[in-house]
Formats: sequence, structure tokens, C-alpha cells
Amino acid sequence: MSLRHFLTTQDYSRSEIDALLEQAAAFKRSPRGQQLAGKSVALLFFNPSMRTRTSFELGAFHLGGHAIVLSPGKDAWPIEFRPNVVMDGEAEEHIAEVARVLSRYVDLIAVRAFPKFQDWSIDREDAVIKAFAQYATVPVINMETITHPCQELAHALALKERFGDLTGRKYVLTWTYHPKPLNTAVANSALLIATKMGMDVTLLCPTPDYVLDERYMAFGEQNAKENGGSLKVSHNIEEAYRGADVVYAKSWGALPFFGRWEQEKPTRDANKHFIVDEAKMALTNNGVFSHCLPLRRNIKATDAVMDSPSCIAIDEAENRLHVQKAVMTSLIGQR
Amino acid sequence: MSLRHFLTTQDYSRSEIDALLEQAAAFKRSPRGQQLAGKSVALLFFNPSMRTRTSFELGAFHLGGHAIVLSPGKDAWPIEFRPNVVMDGEAEEHIAEVARVLSRYVDLIAVRAFPKFQDWSIDREDAVIKAFAQYATVPVINMETITHPCQELAHALALKERFGDLTGRKYVLTWTYHPKPLNTAVANSALLIATKMGMDVTLLCPTPDYVLDERYMAFGEQNAKENGGSLKVSHNIEEAYRGADVVYAKSWGALPFFGRWEQEKPTRDANKHFIVDEAKMALTNNGVFSHCLPLRRNIKATDAVMDSPSCIAIDEAENRLHVQKAVMTSLIGQR
Amino acid sequence: MSLRHFLTTQDYSRSEIDALLEQAAAFKRSPRGQQLAGKSVALLFFNPSMRTRTSFELGAFHLGGHAIVLSPGKDAWPIEFRPNVVMDGEAEEHIAEVARVLSRYVDLIAVRAFPKFQDWSIDREDAVIKAFAQYATVPVINMETITHPCQELAHALALKERFGDLTGRKYVLTWTYHPKPLNTAVANSALLIATKMGMDVTLLCPTPDYVLDERYMAFGEQNAKENGGSLKVSHNIEEAYRGADVVYAKSWGALPFFGRWEQEKPTRDANKHFIVDEAKMALTNNGVFSHCLPLRRNIKATDAVMDSPSCIAIDEAENRLHVQKAVMTSLIGQR
Repeated sequence: MSLRHFLTTQDYSRSEIDALLEQAAAFKRSPRGQQLAGKSVALLFFNPSMRTRTSFELGAFHLGGHAIVLSPGKDAWPIEFRPNVVMDGEAEEHIAEVARVLSRYVDLIAVRAFPKFQDWSIDREDAVIKAFAQYATVPVINMETITHPCQELAHALALKERFGDLTGRKYVLTWTYHPKPLNTAVANSALLIATKMGMDVTLLCPTPDYVLDERYMAFGEQNAKENGGSLKVSHNIEEAYRGADVVYAKSWGALPFFGRWEQEKPTRDANKHFIVDEAKMALTNNGVFSHCLPLRRNIKATDAVMDSPSCIAIDEAENRLHVQKAVMTSLIGQR
Repeated sequence: MSLRHFLTTQDYSRSEIDALLEQAAAFKRSPRGQQLAGKSVALLFFNPSMRTRTSFELGAFHLGGHAIVLSPGKDAWPIEFRPNVVMDGEAEEHIAEVARVLSRYVDLIAVRAFPKFQDWSIDREDAVIKAFAQYATVPVINMETITHPCQELAHALALKERFGDLTGRKYVLTWTYHPKPLNTAVANSALLIATKMGMDVTLLCPTPDYVLDERYMAFGEQNAKENGGSLKVSHNIEEAYRGADVVYAKSWGALPFFGRWEQEKPTRDANKHFIVDEAKMALTNNGVFSHCLPLRRNIKATDAVMDSPSCIAIDEAENRLHVQKAVMTSLIGQR
Repeated sequence: MSLRHFLTTQDYSRSEIDALLEQAAAFKRSPRGQQLAGKSVALLFFNPSMRTRTSFELGAFHLGGHAIVLSPGKDAWPIEFRPNVVMDGEAEEHIAEVARVLSRYVDLIAVRAFPKFQDWSIDREDAVIKAFAQYATVPVINMETITHPCQELAHALALKERFGDLTGRKYVLTWTYHPKPLNTAVANSALLIATKMGMDVTLLCPTPDYVLDERYMAFGEQNAKENGGSLKVSHNIEEAYRGADVVYAKSWGALPFFGRWEQEKPTRDANKHFIVDEAKMALTNNGVFSHCLPLRRNIKATDAVMDSPSCIAIDEAENRLHVQKAVMTSLIGQR
């Protein structure tokens, strides 16, 4: 039987996702156990992290396991990911060896690898984590590459805690301003999970340039069809917020300008009014607000929104701990 | 009941300090236990550390717990501490979220945040750790900001191991030269704990510019009054050392020159003779010498002093492990 | 009785090495235990690491212990190693204090400290780890300085897994090209362990300039004599490979050019054909290939060699975990 990884929720059926969320809720009620006793997970960070690292490290500890934190290129050797190359550049080591050796040491490998932000046609191939999955002989977990499936589960769990069944809920994924062009990973992931949970999803963004990659738009359409929801794009703030049950905010760079970010900057700068504020939230159906964090206050959302009872971003962040325990124990279980 | 932190020994009564020291001595005799079983502490280092990190991480491990080490701005996101600001600078995240999220993950948060060394009127507000204490919903521990209360306990324990009751002992806190203007934290802390233990304390420094912040001088006066000791300032090396039971050395930058360090440099350079050497120690009452470490040999103290039996700096460093176990278990106990 | 360290296999008799390898094989069969319960090891990395750090950290965990990872000069204070100096440079702390304090906290200290690559007459003194061993009051383990004894054991174990008794096997240590002049540590270590196991060892390198330091050549001669093997130098690729049972590859800078690397570069560049490829391996006696990793593919060895069944580099890397458990438990046992 082939090894199962956790690279994207799109590889998991709705019922498998539901089972992971139930297991996560069980861990939330009863956080300690021995499900990972003696087991270990390598956490490879090609990019910084606070919540992800803390929640994975702690998740392993709570269940009797141990996390090893590695930062390749900083406290470990830089890695080559392309096959069949003459390694005369910076990389001292090939993913084939890294993944095979780590697989001898640990029981799970988790990877964070953001895009390079120069050429989306390259970044969208998600080559780093795919190479780990190709060469590793233990399960691989996505800690955010061009999607962020652990965040999806944490988000879905936080919403279910508020609403119970999510089918038919009105869900707005709103683009917001940020001084830098950011990764689309969490936005892609929001589309995937919101449609998978059968919600009526609106992607709100300033212009058609900010629509997400066609791969994730298509997955969203397919998920909506299979789970009784819908997916549409809007550039009208008031229309999108009106009656919403959920507002999820994220900033990202427009894909047509990928690698030519200076040319995108004027449009981004012209849309600072996409900030989530009390006036916009007042248009919703007493809706909840969330964000994956880190969040720049008074840039993406106002202090008033962040500090209001409708903000569930802290719950979502806490849930990272619980859902990742569910993912780790589920992947360990297959071996 | 409001949550109790460990931000400064000044928040703790003499009998509470004595109880922590007794608990620490008990841990020194019996280092392993399950007092922190399944519990976790986040160690946030805005500045480097060797002893602090090792002793906290090990303290948690010895008692069944686990420490998560985070370096914000290096392997985690940079943090904003001011309230109500538009976060358009470097910080990607606000302390409100950082502290609240960490509080969902861990049972204790420990923070090291040195001054910025530009404006003492700002640094003396100790804004970073106060912000953690304000937003966190778990106890916060000071791992050195503008005071270093864990070092105080380790120091006091090492002295009690030598002397038993410390009341009435002659204690000299001597400034020493160092090529850089250093933090006053350990000097402030030495004043606080030495006066709290009822010793007769002399602050020895080259000129009145090197007297410590009035807040800590006043706390020292108050402690001395309450505990039967005294506090005085001296610029006379021989007078200060004569008959001393304890010599504690530390270098720090003169507060009136804060942020204008080039102007302080000539005075600092002119006082290299404050180095603790055998001739000075010979003036004492067969006194002990200590220092918080790291210490530059033959700059702050000579090899002969460091390697003599009267040097208890290694004992003091070891005691960090024991006193921090006492602090952690005491804070966990209140929940 | 004086404290025993693990600084070089040359301090260990053949039968002691055999016992460590047997213990390692036992840990490979049964990886979990409580041999290090409540014990801790400090891992000090002055240079980057992936395998070493992961395998030590995990080895401690598997046996109930805990590893503390420190990077002096990065997340800990820079350290002075020379005795009796006035510390007015960059170092904030002397090895005397570092080693003594760590010895109060942990049960083992492991150190990685590469040469500075400026003056071999200095680097060959191995001053950093010797200073740790001098001042520490707990056992010290070499995680690679100018030899790499843990790698030696892992290598020997992998060979014994293939061949059983190694006496009389034909062993080639071949220099290979690498864009940078690398450490001789693993090459020195290969000589030490291959001769200690009684193999017939050929050091293959482009010119006499690439022969290793006389200290290790002499140890190799002595080991060969004591264990029934031999040691010779060759500059003839075909002759060296013909009939070999083991090919071990490593790149290193030529010692006569130490610190004047630009002058060595033309010779290094002229010998890229030392790469281990299928044609060379075809000359062997169906031999195995190994390397300590990290390895630049298609520079030191071709993809075909790395991916062939005769490559045992991954086994060797895995064995780091097992042999280091044997080393740690053996050193702990003496206390």
C-alpha cells in the first residue's frame, strides 16, 4: 500500500476531513496521551514560524513524542531539489539524501517552504514538498507551501465550534492590503476548505488580477458542487459583506504581477480601504471574523475588530495544536 | 483572583522569597520530579543566552515538562508592542495576538528583552515584558529585561549556602570596566536582593554618573529599612572592599550618557582599575566573589580571582537551574 | 579515576571499539530504552549540522534523556579558548566558565568545531574540544573537529553489516573534487577506523600534496600493524579501485596550501575526474560505496552510484543514531 501524506486537503475526502476534525475536537477536550510515545517528527522550516513550530512541537510532546526543529540553510545544510543536476552551486546536499536519511531517523517529516516570489509558474509546482514526499519513506506533512492545510483544519474547527454544521453558511474570503506582496497559500486554502464544508463562498478582491490560481478556483468549484455550496468572485465590498456569517481576511500578491511586484504596488496601495473594520462587519449577519495570523493591526483589520467577541482568530490559532495532533496520529496510524 | 507573574522580586515579600529559596534548595538536593508533568513553558529570547536557556529548558525537562525556545525576529515573526498603532513597519504581529495565542499553547511564558540602549526614559518602562504580562493569560517570567530576578534568587541561594543567614553581612556591588556599555539589569537586581536579605550594601562605582536608576536606589533603601540592612554609595575602592563578606561585580553604562555612549567612553576607559583582583580581595573579610556570567576574564576579574576557592560564580550559575524550577512550580501551582 | 571522553577513536582499544559497535547493533535492533532517563546532553554547534544534531537529539529522546542544542556566537555568547588572555576582543565568556557551568547542568557535552582554515599548525591542535575536555567535569564527545569519531563508528557498523569481519578487506579512501577546500576530519577518521578494523587501506589522491597530516598517517600505520592490515598511498585511480571491497569518498583541501586556498584551486579544479562513477566502481570487487554526507551529487559521486544498491551512505547515516546511543550510554556508565 502506498504511503499517505498530508500535503493538501484536496487529497482527503469530505468524510476523512470530518473525521480529522472530530479527532481534533477530542484532543481539545483531552489534550494529553501516549499516541506518539517514542515517535518523532522532523520540522523543517525554510521560512520563519511561531505558531506552527510551537503547536507542532507541543503537539508531539503532549502525546509522548518529540519534535526536531531544523532550519536548512541556516543551522543545517542548504538543499538541492532538482533531479539530475551537477551540484556546483550553493546546495551541499540533495533532497534524495536528506529525505532518505531523515526517514531513517524520524516517523514523520513536516515541511514549511514558501514560494520564491519570482516566477509563479515555477512556485505553483510546489517542488520542495513534492520532492520530500517523493523521496521520504515516512509520511510528509505540509506546514505551508502554496497551500496551508493545517490552517484549513484549524479554521474549519473554529467555525464548527461557533456554527455547528457549516452547510449553506455565507462565507467571505476578503483580500486586504499589506505593505508586501504575500503568499496566496492561506487564501487558496480558505477556498478549498470553505467550499469543502459546503458553504456559499465569495472571494472578495479589488480587481480580477487578484483572483487566485485557476487550479484552486477549479478545486473550489468542484468542492462546492460536491458539497452543496457555491463559489463566486466579487469586487464589491458592500455586496460581499452583506449577510455574511464568516469573514476571513488575507492579503496576497496579484498573480499576473508575480515577480514584477513594483508594477503591482500602485493597485495594492490604492486598496487599503479593504481593511476589515466595524462598519464592514456591521453589514454582516452578526458574522464572525478570523485570520490565520500573523496580522498587522490597523492594516488588515482594526483594533476594534480584533478585540471584539466576533473575532475567533485566537481560537483558530489554538486549534492548530489540536488538528495537528489529529493529523500526526492519523498518519502514524497507517504504518 | 488576579494572575501572579514573576517580573521582579520587588513584587514578592521577603517571606515569599525565602520560600522560593527553600524550594530551590530542595530541588538542588532532589533534582527530578513530576511537578511540571505535561506542562510547557515558552522561552522567548529577544537577546542571546546560554545559561538561561539551558537551565530553563533543563528545569522543565527534569520535572516532566517541556520548554519551547523562540527567537522573535529571527526564527519567529517580529513583534509590535505599542498599543493602537497602524502596523506599517517591520513588525508582522502584535503582542496582543502573540501573548494570547501562546497562552493557549503553553502554561508559562518566559521573556528575555534587553534595553535598546538609546533612550533610558523609554527602556526603563520595561514595555516588552509588561505587554506580555498584560495580554498573557498564563504567568509570565522575567528572564532579564532591566532587572534579572532569576539571577537574584540564584545569587542569594549561593550566598546562603556559604553564610547561612545573610543579615548584617557586608556586601559590595562593584562596577567594573567592560569595552561596551552594558545593561544595568543585574546591578539593579543585586541592589534589590542584597538589601532584601538585610545586608549592609555598598554600591561602589567610579563617579556619581554610575549610580543606578533612582527607582532601584529607592527600592534598595526601602528594602534595607524593612530588613534591617543599609545602602550607601562609595567611589572609594579601598574603603568599599575593606571588611567585605561579599564582592559582586558587574559592568554597566552610566545612565546620564544613555544613548550618547561615545561621550561616556573616556570615563569608562579611565576606570579599568576597578577590575576585581587579588589585592582588592585581600582587603575583604575573607570574602567571597561572584558574578552573573558571562564574564570577560582579566577585564572584569583576574584569572586568579576567578580560579580561587572564594569565587562562587559557578555555584551561582548552577543555582539558576534550581531557583527557576522553584519559580516555575510556584507559578504553575496558582492555576 | 580520571574522566573518560570520546574525542578520538585512537584513545580506544580495538576491543573497546568492537564493544561500542556491538552495543550500537543492539540499539539498532531495539531502539527504545531508559538508559539515559533524566539525563541530558548539551550539543554545542560552532558549525551547521543536520544528521549530527538530529541523531544526537533523537538518540537522547529514545533513551529517556534530553538534548539541549546551543550555537555559541549565534544564539549563545561567543567563547574565548586561550588561557590567560585579557578578553578585550569579541568573546564575552571563557571556556573555563562555559565548560564548568554546563557541567553543572548536563551529564554530557558534545562539541562540533571545524577548523578555521587559515593556519593548519593552529587548527591541528584541536584547541576547542581539548579546552572543553580540560575544563568540563562531565564527559565530552567529539561531533567533528579535525576528526569525526562518531562517523567512524557509523561507517564501521555499516561495513560490518555488509561484510561481517572486515580483516583483510581492500578499502579505498578516495579524494574527490569539491568547489571548496573542505575539512580533512572525515578523511583522517576514515584512515583511523579502516586501519583499526584491519583492512588493507589505500589512500587515493591526486598528488602528494593531498596526503593527510602525518599524525593520522602515523596512527594509520600503527593501527595497521596492530590489527593485521596495511596502509599505502596511491595516485593511480585504476590501480586503487581494482579489486576494492569498499570505496569511501571525501573531498578535502591540500594541507600544504592551507590558508592559501587560491593557490590550491588550479590543482583541485584539474582533478574533477576523481568523481566516483559507474566506470570506476566496475573495477572493484563488486564493492560498496559510501560517503559521510552531505554529498554534492554529480560532483563527488554520480547519481548512478548514489542510487545503486552498492551505495550504503544512507545506512551509514542511519547508524549515527545507533552508535551515538552506544557512546552516550557508555560514557554515562562510568560516572
